[in-house]
Amino acid sequence: MAYYKDIREYIKALEERELLWRIKTAVKKETELSPMVRWQFRGLTEDQRRAFLFENVIDSKGHKYDVPVLVGALAGSKKIYATGLQCKPEEIQKKWDQAQHKPIPPKLVKDGPVHEVIMMGKELKEEGLDRFPFAVDIPGFEGILRTTSSHFFSKDPETGVGNIGCYSSYVIARDRMAIGIGPVMHMRTNWQKAKEMGLPFLPAALVPSMVPAVCYTSVARIPYGTDELEISGGLAGEPIEMVKCKTVDIEVPATAEIVIEGKVSTSMEMNNTGAFGEYTGYMAEPIPCLIFDITCITHRRNPILMNIISQMPPSESSKIRQLAYEGVWYNFLKRDCGINSVLDVAFHEISGSCYYCVIQMKKRHPAEAWQALNAAVAHASFVGKFFITVDEDIDPRDPESVNWALCFRTQPHLDTRITMGKTASLDPSAAPPTAPWSEKNYPSPRGCSALLIDATRKWDYPSVSLPKREYMERARELWEAEGLPALKPRVPWFGYKLGHWPKEYEEAAESVIKGEIYQLGERVYQQRRQI
Amino acid sequence: MAYYKDIREYIKALEERELLWRIKTAVKKETELSPMVRWQFRGLTEDQRRAFLFENVIDSKGHKYDVPVLVGALAGSKKIYATGLQCKPEEIQKKWDQAQHKPIPPKLVKDGPVHEVIMMGKELKEEGLDRFPFAVDIPGFEGILRTTSSHFFSKDPETGVGNIGCYSSYVIARDRMAIGIGPVMHMRTNWQKAKEMGLPFLPAALVPSMVPAVCYTSVARIPYGTDELEISGGLAGEPIEMVKCKTVDIEVPATAEIVIEGKVSTSMEMNNTGAFGEYTGYMAEPIPCLIFDITCITHRRNPILMNIISQMPPSESSKIRQLAYEGVWYNFLKRDCGINSVLDVAFHEISGSCYYCVIQMKKRHPAEAWQALNAAVAHASFVGKFFITVDEDIDPRDPESVNWALCFRTQPHLDTRITMGKTASLDPSAAPPTAPWSEKNYPSPRGCSALLIDATRKWDYPSVSLPKREYMERARELWEAEGLPALKPRVPWFGYKLGHWPKEYEEAAESVIKGEIYQLGERVYQQRRQI
Repeated sequence: MAYYKDIREYIKALEERELLWRIKTAVKKETELSPMVRWQFRGLTEDQRRAFLFENVIDSKGHKYDVPVLVGALAGSKKIYATGLQCKPEEIQKKWDQAQHKPIPPKLVKDGPVHEVIMMGKELKEEGLDRFPFAVDIPGFEGILRTTSSHFFSKDPETGVGNIGCYSSYVIARDRMAIGIGPVMHMRTNWQKAKEMGLPFLPAALVPSMVPAVCYTSVARIPYGTDELEISGGLAGEPIEMVKCKTVDIEVPATAEIVIEGKVSTSMEMNNTGAFGEYTGYMAEPIPCLIFDITCITHRRNPILMNIISQMPPSESSKIRQLAYEGVWYNFLKRDCGINSVLDVAFHEISGSCYYCVIQMKKRHPAEAWQALNAAVAHASFVGKFFITVDEDIDPRDPESVNWALCFRTQPHLDTRITMGKTASLDPSAAPPTAPWSEKNYPSPRGCSALLIDATRKWDYPSVSLPKREYMERARELWEAEGLPALKPRVPWFGYKLGHWPKEYEEAAESVIKGEIYQLGERVYQQRRQI
Repeated sequence: MAYYKDIREYIKALEERELLWRIKTAVKKETELSPMVRWQFRGLTEDQRRAFLFENVIDSKGHKYDVPVLVGALAGSKKIYATGLQCKPEEIQKKWDQAQHKPIPPKLVKDGPVHEVIMMGKELKEEGLDRFPFAVDIPGFEGILRTTSSHFFSKDPETGVGNIGCYSSYVIARDRMAIGIGPVMHMRTNWQKAKEMGLPFLPAALVPSMVPAVCYTSVARIPYGTDELEISGGLAGEPIEMVKCKTVDIEVPATAEIVIEGKVSTSMEMNNTGAFGEYTGYMAEPIPCLIFDITCITHRRNPILMNIISQMPPSESSKIRQLAYEGVWYNFLKRDCGINSVLDVAFHEISGSCYYCVIQMKKRHPAEAWQALNAAVAHASFVGKFFITVDEDIDPRDPESVNWALCFRTQPHLDTRITMGKTASLDPSAAPPTAPWSEKNYPSPRGCSALLIDATRKWDYPSVSLPKREYMERARELWEAEGLPALKPRVPWFGYKLGHWPKEYEEAAESVIKGEIYQLGERVYQQRRQI
């Protein structure tokens, strides 16, 4: 099956799978649009979530936009993300593996629908970004209009290698935006090089809406020097078709909905004014930003604007990060560190898919649990505050299952250790809000800390105290025959052995099933003794 | 409203509230009955759970019993427990307070329905316990027939003060049982006194089925020397009517369904043969037991047998323990220790309602969080491995909400401490299964450990990154008008302030709502600076 030609085909695919709601009611972009989508992250289960297509967007002054807004379509749930990759949810990891091992370079084409409409000069100055209903993400707290689906295309000015990255950006005029790019981000490196080379600006293009395969690589952490578009091609299974921008030396997907071309100044910077929401679940404070002067906007006829719902987890951004980090850490532990007993890595979304990481393993040697913990905490200084190893029978994604392991498979004085030297990555527990930025990022003198917990079994255990599998299965038949409510089984849902189960226990259990309780009783009674 | 006269009235009340399923299909007591009820604890949400009345119980040899079995009727869910106390779920704590402060002594009556049928002598020897379909709780692993709804009535042989306790007991003959009673249990104290006084036995009566108010006090930890029945009366709001047993000097509820009278030998003991399920989620190994020789069985016409579903949490027993411990710890911290800022105490069921305890507080002084942690871990040596304090905006019962606090409100090196000297209480992580009992209970030389975590905020935080409440409420109206799936909101579902929110942030957020984004943008752009 060919990959989606554009997001219009993708929207159709979501709709066919009952993964999209069309909202025809008039909805305000400042106060109603994002809160409505937000509800599904605070009030539905993940498998109930869908993408939203708002077809009738208005603003607080009553203006009606022609442009519909698509939200939650990239990663509203794992099922949606899998649809974006044309695979099953359990195949996402494999898709990423394949894309990284078999990248497919993009293909330059002469023209594409993204150039159907071109806005420059006076029109850009007078209308510009007004044409698109960028929605307020956190109404009541966000102090500047932030765009969330902000995939920036730029190039290394030395080598010409392309880069795509999703950076938070802010609308400050009809033809001007601010961009917040952290110090280790790749577009910052490109910008730094341009500055060092004495260039007055770094050319760039912001593409809010394009096929998912390109969006996904934009938010993944692909090593600097690898063109993200080759990975996108690998994900799509075919080259991404690109066209040259009209005013800057940048290529963008030919079927993108909207492209905002411009120049990032290398001589001036500014602060944004207002606080903005962050993945930690708390607002972050104004940060220094680069200035992006728009030179041209191109778009398709009847363009569709895409929005990513982020901040307080779970959200679309925590789902995207989760799937990326889980893949990266799994590969690092299993392949780079050679800890073959690792079965799964789960970053819990409530931690912003960053601070609570559970590593499931089938230990072959007791040392492997600590090897995994030490390696996992070392992989990136800004990722992870709680690292927990669990056995193969624990569901690393179910917080109750993990807590069960914590309670009955650890002794805190023997199975936990604290390590230092972590960076804070916007964590408000690092330092008070009024502290200098350096303290907030790395409180002196030793930085932030992480807690490592080995919650695997240290020896054989008696069996789990639930009926054997065959009896639970038979009971489920009876349950269903009675028409009782639909079951959603959680592990463990049957008893199983954990190493310590002597033959005499097995035999006694068989006798009980056969109803031979008085024979059992007589035998023990005969062995009674004087106290 | 008068309290339930007997469990028949109570069953009616459950049925009226749609909290009971009647199962008319033939169900095997060895392999089908408990697994069927078990499913609702591994496959439904708590508010979906109900009590089960099995009306057609058979055994593995095809025998059909006249006696129906009631399961999950005491504490299948908090709603069921509240029905047993004739109150709302949120009033349970108040009910217990009232019962302890205003106990009502029981009333002795001449006769009661419990004596409608009397079985002694030859009939007891030849039929005895066979009359009742005691179900196997963990088929495939349990190595002896264990009864779970085993409320034993006994008396202090010196003072005559009554005691009720729920102890695991085992059917070893038609007229004989074994009872496992731990060293610090009250019936063990009565038995010890009888032995010291040279009495050949301690008289006792086992009552599997009676009104919930009496069952609940049986499993609570009422101080020794207080007659549990006075607390039961306090819970019921009226005296419990009692009758004298036929063959032992013990009183039992006049409307109980079944009473098993007998004598606990003070000279002989035995082991049970088989492993049995425990609250930790693992099987426990054979333990020494006392011997209970049955002298008489009395019951009502058409008696109903009650069963408590326990072991792997969540279960009926973890719910009963949870509600009791939460009340006890709350009172201890708030009243006995005077930590007035404590708002709630939550024992998580997955920890057997024993090892994972979250204390919610609205701190007035930073020291209070550690005072609460230190007091909570000290209250009972066998309770608690993880103690966590959280702020008032965290749901202490939602593991994700607690994990959110752990991730962004702690620095492990500053906010966690390990303490020693805990006893193990069947925790398989304490020592290998083959270790001596003393090591399993208190590994030498310092016992087990607990981890204390202060996950409250240490300073003011920026606001939570969710839309303000008013916008989420408006969005919910839109959501419902669109006919989208029913929402089950989880906290936090709106953004709120956490102390650090300067006036200029507030003002900027208001401007954004009004759509004044270019004015905001212009202001910050004017303050741009040379890099």
